[in-house]
This record gives sequence, structure tokens and C-alpha cells, in this order.
Amino acid sequence: MAKQKKAPRPKAVTPKGFRDFFGAEVTQRAEMLRTIAGVYHRYGFEALESSAVETVEALGKFLPDVDRPNEGVFAWQEADVPGGGGGDWLALRYDLTAPLARVYAQHRNDLPTPYRRYAMGPVWRNEKPGPGRFRQFYQCDADTVGSGSVAADAEICAMLADTLEAVGIPRGDYVVRVNNRKVLNGVLEAMGLAEDEERSAAVMRTIDKFDKVGEAGVRELLGKGRLDASGAYIDGVGLSEEQVERVVGYLKAKEETANYLVTPTAYDEQGDVSTELRLQAEYLRSDELPETVGEQRVEGQSALLGHLQGLVGDSAEGKQGLDELAQMADLLEAGGYGPDRIIIDPSVVRGLGYYTGPVFEAELTFEITDEKGRPRQFGSVAGGGRYDDLVKRFTGQEVPATGVSIGVDRLLAALHAKGRIQGETQGPVVVTVMDRDRMADYQKMVAELRAAGIRAEVYLGNPKNFGNQLKYADKRNSPVAIIEGGDEKEKGIVQIKDLVLGAKIAETASLEEWKDRPSQFEVPRDQMVAKVQDILKGQGQ
Amino acid sequence: MAKQKKAPRPKAVTPKGFRDFFGAEVTQRAEMLRTIAGVYHRYGFEALESSAVETVEALGKFLPDVDRPNEGVFAWQEADVPGGGGGDWLALRYDLTAPLARVYAQHRNDLPTPYRRYAMGPVWRNEKPGPGRFRQFYQCDADTVGSGSVAADAEICAMLADTLEAVGIPRGDYVVRVNNRKVLNGVLEAMGLAEDEERSAAVMRTIDKFDKVGEAGVRELLGKGRLDASGAYIDGVGLSEEQVERVVGYLKAKEETANYLVTPTAYDEQGDVSTELRLQAEYLRSDELPETVGEQRVEGQSALLGHLQGLVGDSAEGKQGLDELAQMADLLEAGGYGPDRIIIDPSVVRGLGYYTGPVFEAELTFEITDEKGRPRQFGSVAGGGRYDDLVKRFTGQEVPATGVSIGVDRLLAALHAKGRIQGETQGPVVVTVMDRDRMADYQKMVAELRAAGIRAEVYLGNPKNFGNQLKYADKRNSPVAIIEGGDEKEKGIVQIKDLVLGAKIAETASLEEWKDRPSQFEVPRDQMVAKVQDILKGQGQ
Repeated sequence: MAKQKKAPRPKAVTPKGFRDFFGAEVTQRAEMLRTIAGVYHRYGFEALESSAVETVEALGKFLPDVDRPNEGVFAWQEADVPGGGGGDWLALRYDLTAPLARVYAQHRNDLPTPYRRYAMGPVWRNEKPGPGRFRQFYQCDADTVGSGSVAADAEICAMLADTLEAVGIPRGDYVVRVNNRKVLNGVLEAMGLAEDEERSAAVMRTIDKFDKVGEAGVRELLGKGRLDASGAYIDGVGLSEEQVERVVGYLKAKEETANYLVTPTAYDEQGDVSTELRLQAEYLRSDELPETVGEQRVEGQSALLGHLQGLVGDSAEGKQGLDELAQMADLLEAGGYGPDRIIIDPSVVRGLGYYTGPVFEAELTFEITDEKGRPRQFGSVAGGGRYDDLVKRFTGQEVPATGVSIGVDRLLAALHAKGRIQGETQGPVVVTVMDRDRMADYQKMVAELRAAGIRAEVYLGNPKNFGNQLKYADKRNSPVAIIEGGDEKEKGIVQIKDLVLGAKIAETASLEEWKDRPSQFEVPRDQMVAKVQDILKGQGQ
Repeated sequence: MAKQKKAPRPKAVTPKGFRDFFGAEVTQRAEMLRTIAGVYHRYGFEALESSAVETVEALGKFLPDVDRPNEGVFAWQEADVPGGGGGDWLALRYDLTAPLARVYAQHRNDLPTPYRRYAMGPVWRNEKPGPGRFRQFYQCDADTVGSGSVAADAEICAMLADTLEAVGIPRGDYVVRVNNRKVLNGVLEAMGLAEDEERSAAVMRTIDKFDKVGEAGVRELLGKGRLDASGAYIDGVGLSEEQVERVVGYLKAKEETANYLVTPTAYDEQGDVSTELRLQAEYLRSDELPETVGEQRVEGQSALLGHLQGLVGDSAEGKQGLDELAQMADLLEAGGYGPDRIIIDPSVVRGLGYYTGPVFEAELTFEITDEKGRPRQFGSVAGGGRYDDLVKRFTGQEVPATGVSIGVDRLLAALHAKGRIQGETQGPVVVTVMDRDRMADYQKMVAELRAAGIRAEVYLGNPKNFGNQLKYADKRNSPVAIIEGGDEKEKGIVQIKDLVLGAKIAETASLEEWKDRPSQFEVPRDQMVAKVQDILKGQGQ
């Protein structure tokens, strides 16, 4: 009989679009989530952790950020139910908002109203992976369900500002931009597009691109079309000249307030963003800041709202949106959240999804250097808004809700780019193995070190080659290695190597400056822990 | 045209076997994971977070704890790849060990050897849900990959003991039981079952049941069979009398060491566990503990190992297992982990899975009361062992590895059962809304409270009914409510209600003892924060 062919070895790879996180990547994110949870908690929000898996029915087949509603979810069918019929379709959650709607509908009789909850964890998108585009990523949300008051929206904007500062983005390096979808809808109504969903959507997409293509680009996109940077021709929306003017007027409304330190205005045609926002932020932090900034803001705001008033015309929805914006501005002012942190910006759209009122996003205003060495602004790290229809799907009752989602991975990337967090963690003290029969002695050493709160381990690889043990300590970024061979044991001492100092000496051409500072010490065995503590202290641990 | 029928409303339910966690359930688990990560880190382990989704190929179609290898995983196929052929099969991870093997095989050239990593997060099992059986649950693992030394196993047992104490299980309330699969295999070999996989597996399953069915039960199960408590007849393994004696001798080996304070022995026939372990642990902590406990342990251990020696006969594997157990015992002794924490126990089997050498599990030894009011021992909360073949699947090279997995949810349940953690968290200070036009004033109040580090919020529901606002504060478990109506505003004061004291007064029949302690205070507006701080301090916050 022929021998059966062996199955080929499995490939050791993550599925496309998924990735692994190591060491500091994990602990820094955990620390950031903990900090954010602390702020959310202080604002009265309670933790919720819903299951990662939902029924497709409960999730609804839509995503907030994509145009095509039936894609983007990892789903599978449960095994057949005994007694006939196929099983439920299940899916991985694609965000934390759809599960919140399900949880609130399911438990509404036990939950307080309003229900303030925060949630953090991975979400999954079945999208085509690409560079920087992953199919599993973290979200960190806070939502208030059951309150229709714009005070709920204002509070979430304030909390977003506090959160960014808590994780290490100083005031001036970020701005929270606020708008209201009702104002946008009012402008569309005034343009005669209230019933034209397709063109309304196209206009909103174009407004969303203002920061990238500038005024001239918007004019082209709304009119006859535009040749983009790659040479492709993009069809225009085909609006009349008067309609185009209204949109451009809307987008330029924020210039009205530019004199009042409000928001960046000019972006050049190449899509490179200007540094105006950053300069404004610097100015706001500087000593030149006039005492009257609060008054200026109120003036600027009035000017902006007045200008928008003209653009929404007689639209009742538009007027309501402007009223809500004005209320939010007052509430934020009262809470001490000035224009150096939160501004009104009519160009904020937040996708085509489910938002029904206030929308907001947080942008980091500092520049980073991209892979080609060019300066770039970092961009958006969080966003959210009011959505009043999600719970209704389940219960038939309209339940007003508003919330924010923070992109934790982007925020971490920003802190790395600014050098505010380090890429590597300190390794353990490594107790080397000189004599494999004396493992119990070495185990006793690490037990003592750990009992003193020092991170420590015995080398557990093959101890034959001592060089490999030091290479291991180096790879682990260890601060100290401990050596106890037969001679040391007999003399009742141990050798302690300061690996940080050792590396410095190795880097220095002249040994002159180190000659009085040896990097290896001989100490009595019973002083080992104290000496290691000394060395770690000297290294700034 | 007939109106299209509306789709029925989706049901707001979790899929079967999944659940949601609220408030303290989430934060207490997060706190426990953080504590555990702290211990793992001190032992030199690095964090790893692999993706939740793996290719089915990389996971392998087996689970460690079930007999049938092809079940138990949530899997789905990727959409067809353009250009022909179906997509990969993907699946949710069912544990954290299979992904570790994949990660190590994928990144082995960049990782240090040995690679010590910890991981924590949900895993998913596609099993039939039932009471207390969920399809998503947390695991919290630590593994050392690339070390064949039993020092690695001993260290993980020590770390497990430290971890349990760190999360709040005091010494004496737990025991880590250690065994070695090679000893088991040696006994099976000596019984002539080396080639009889089926009956070997049946013997191991029976040994696993010793704690539940006792000696007589084991005899029946190994011989002709047994009528279980529910009245069902369970077929026996059909061993000869001599073979049965050897297994019983093996299981009773630990009695040899009973005089040396090692492990519980007698369980009664009804499956109720004895309290011996707990009594032993109490004795070990008591003042009666003889100075010679260390020596006694060594003696007890020698007796146990000597007894087992007779049972493995000439089996080389059995002898090696005993040698490894003896080494581990020495290493643990050296690290100060005595029999009040870690014991050798031949009845530990750890399923039928992939373990190849040392196996261990942590058991909580205190009693809890079950839903029917009967005392029960809490049982196992963690387990692990050595598995040397998992990486080989990918690379062809054998890579020795050992690790432990802690059942975080069970551990939390244990702490709740012992009353060591509270079920509810403190709610926020609630600023009530007396005048909805003065929301900005109330917002300013919470901003001040939060700036002082006090958890606080404005009531964001409909403010019309003041009673509802206080009901809300009650439901949130709020310590304090603040009231500022028109009168108070005019007088420049606020009313502060101590809700904790108020509840106490309401509970007391006589108001006598409270008459000098009002639960509501009138303070100048600018002393609001200070007064709230006072009250919280008095409440023990």
C-alpha cells in the first residue's frame, strides 16, 4: 500500500489585514484605555462590555461610514437547529454603537435613563485590507442614550477635549470641531435639494473634501467635474451656479470668524494643509493673547451664526440647527471650554451615516513628517454626533442618543510621532546560569529580587554558551545581569553587571571618562538585592 | 399597487451563549487583569496581543479540552479571491495558546529565545451553550516558549501562586497541584496499556474523576462500570483486577504524604468534597505549625516519589517524569514555595490534550454555598502544563514550551462569593436641573466638581418631574445631589443632599439618632465643591 501523503505544514501568518501587537504596543494601549476610562468615569459614564458576536439581525446590515450598506461584516451561519430550519446568522460587531442600541433595547427597563455608558474594545470590518488599513482595530466610545438635550452633546465635546489632554495631547495641539447636520440639511433645503437624496449626499461628500481640495476644487466638483491629482476625471454634481455659490458661501462662513481666532481657512490646491490652525493655537497659548478672547469668540460666533442664518433661508430645520449650535456654544463657554479647544466649523460632515443633529470631530493640529519626509498635519483622531433612530429599529420608540468614538490606535501613533511615549519597555534583571545543577540557587535569587518588586528572571535557555545568555539579556533590554559561578559561590559573592553603563562604555571611543566607573561589581551574596536596587536607581528606573 | 410589507423588527437579544457585562463587572475584571499583568511582568513576561481572527489552517482543527477534534470553532470562508478559487477559511481563536504557536513560528527570528509572553483577552468556543457555559470568555495566559527546563515549569507554578495572592486569594485559600504526564504514561506502560490509546485515555479520564467519585467509584469505572447519581449506567473500562489495583495504588500514593501535610485524601461517595484541604491549610497558617515543616515536606515528598517509583516499574518515561517532579519540588522549595502553596498531586491529569510533561492546576480550597444552600468547594481556577509539539506543526522543529491559563471570570466569581469585592460602584454626584434655561449654570457646577477630581454629571433627562431626577440619582447609586433653584440662585447658595445619609435615615424607624445630623445642607455657591468633598470624605469615599 502506498504511504499516505503527509498534509503540508500550515503557514504561520495572520489572516490578511490582521496583525499582532507586542510588548510596549500592548501595554501602552492598555494604559491609554485606562486613562480614557478614568475621564469617562469622572463624567459619570458606566462601563459596558457587550459580546463581540451579535446576530446579523440585531446589528443591522449597515455601516456608518460606507456608502454600500450590505458589505463590511464578518458573518457566518449557526449550525442547523435540531428539528429543522437553519441557524441564526451571527457576525462580529463592526462598531460599538450598534451593540449599544441592542443592549439598550434589551435592558432598557433595568438601565437608568439617561443611560451613560462607555465601551472599549476591538471591532471588525470585512474590508479590503491595504497599507495602514486593518480589519480589526480598537474603538473607545462614550454615549448618552435617552437624552435629547444638546447639553448631552456639549458635554461629550468637553469630555473629548479633557480626554485628549489626559492622554498627553497638550492644549493647542488639538481642536474639537463642532457642526450640526440640521444646518447642512437647511442649506440643502434652501438650495432646493431637500427631496434629492442622491445629489444631497454628493454635496455632503464634497463638503467633506473641502480641507483637501480647497475652494476651487469644491467649485469644480459641485459643477462640471474635476481632474484629480492622479489624472483621473471625477464627474461633477452638476449644480447650478447659484447653488454652487451657496455651498461655497457656506464653507467660507467660517472665514467670517477667522478674525476671531476660530479656525483655519486656506488650504492650497495641492491638498497640502496650511499651518494656520497650528499658528492660531500657538497664538492662543502665547502671552499676546488678549484679555478679550472670550468676548471675541462670542462676537466671532455671532458673526458665523449670522452668516449661516442667511444661507439656510426659511428652512425650519436649518434654523433649529443654528439654535442648537448657539446653545452648545453657550454651554461650552460656561464650562470653560474656549476657542483654543472647541470651535464651530461648518465643514464638519462626519460621513453619510446615521447622524441627525450635532456632529463633531477632534483633530490633532501639529505637523508630523510622512514617510517621504514631507510635513503633514496629523488629522482626525475622534468623532461622533447625535443619532436618534438606532434604538427605534428594535422597539419602535424613538430614543435620542449622542456619542463619541476615539481612534485609540491613531492617538497612540500621534504620541509616538511626537516622541511622547517610548517604543520599548525596560527588560528584566537576568540571573545567568553558570552551573546548571545549581538552578535552585538561581531561582532563589530571582525570588528575592521579585519579592523586592524588581522585575527579574533566570535565564531558561540552554546555558552552555554564556555569550548567548548576555545576548539574550541585551535583546530583552535588560538593565542588569547577575553572575554566580563556582568561585563566586565559594567566596559567598555575586557579580553584578550594569548593562546600561556597559553599553555606554562600549559606545564611547575613549575609556577615559569611564575609568572610575566600572560596569561590573562584586558584592556579597546577601547584598545582591540592595546593590541591584542601587544600580536601577542610578539608571533612572 | 399594494403597499410593501414592512420588515419585522429585529429582536434585541445577544446570540445564544453570549452575554453583556455592565459597570463594576467590567471595571473589576479590568482591574484584575491589570494586577495579573503586573505579576507576569515582574516575572519577566512580555505582553502579546494577537488578532482575534486566525486562519483555520493556522489554528489547527483541534481544541485542547474536548474529545472530538473537529468541533468547537466559529469559522467562515473569505469571499472568493478575484481570479478564481475560494478564499481562506478564517476562525475566531478558541484559546490563546494556538495563536502563540503561530506568532512564535511567524516571528521566531525577531523574538528572544526563550520567549516569555503573557496574553489576555476573550476566546470563543462554538459549543452548545448552557447554564454557566458561555461561548465567549476571558483567558489570561503566560507561557515560556523555547525552554525545555523544568525550571520554566516550576517558575510558572510559583507565579501562579503569587498571582492568586495578588488578586486577593490569601495563602491557605488556594493550592497549586502539580503532576507530570510522563509519570502517568509510565504507570500506563507498566500496566501494559502503552499501545492501547483508547483505554489509556479512558484511564486518564477516570483518574480525573477521582476527586468526584472517590476510590470505590474509580474501581467501578475501571472495572465493570457504575451506576451514576442520575441513575444512568456508565460502562467500565474493563481492566483486570491487577491493573485496577495499580491505578488505585497510584491515586492513593498521595496518602503516603498525608502525614506530611500535603494534600486532601478522602472524598465521600456522594461526590461532596471533604474539608480536609481547608483544615490542612488552616493548620499550616496556625501557630501550631512545627518548625520542621520544610523537612516534613521533603520527607513526605520522598515517600510519595518512592511509592510512585514502584508503580512506574521499569518505564523509562515514568522514571524521567519522577525525576522532573523531584527537580520541580527542589526548585520550588528554593524559591520559598512550601506545601501551603504548591503540592505534588498524582491525581492531576488536565484533559486529554497536548500536554507532554509537567501539568498543574490551581484550586480554591474554601467553601462557598451553592444555589441550593449546600456547601461546595469552589474548585479549579487555573491550569496548564508543558506542551512541546505545537510550534512543530508550522516549522517542523520541536520547540519546548510551558504555560498557564487563568480563568479570570471564575476567579472574579470566587472573590464575589467570598465578599472580597463589591457588586456595585459608586455613582456620580448628580447636579439636578431646576430651571432648564439655566443649563449653562449647572454645566459650570459639574465642570468645577470634575476639575476637583469628583465624579459628577448634570441630569440630562427631562427635568420637568423633580422626583424623577432623585430617582435617577438613586438608581445610579449617587452619593450626593445638588439643587439650585431660582431662590437659591438669588441668594447665592446651593442645596446639597447627602443621599447615603438620607437613605440611612429613611431606613431607621426612629429619627432620634439622626436629629442632629441633617442630610441636606445649604452652602454658599462658592463653597459647593469643598462641602461635597467633605460629605464624600464622611461617607468613606
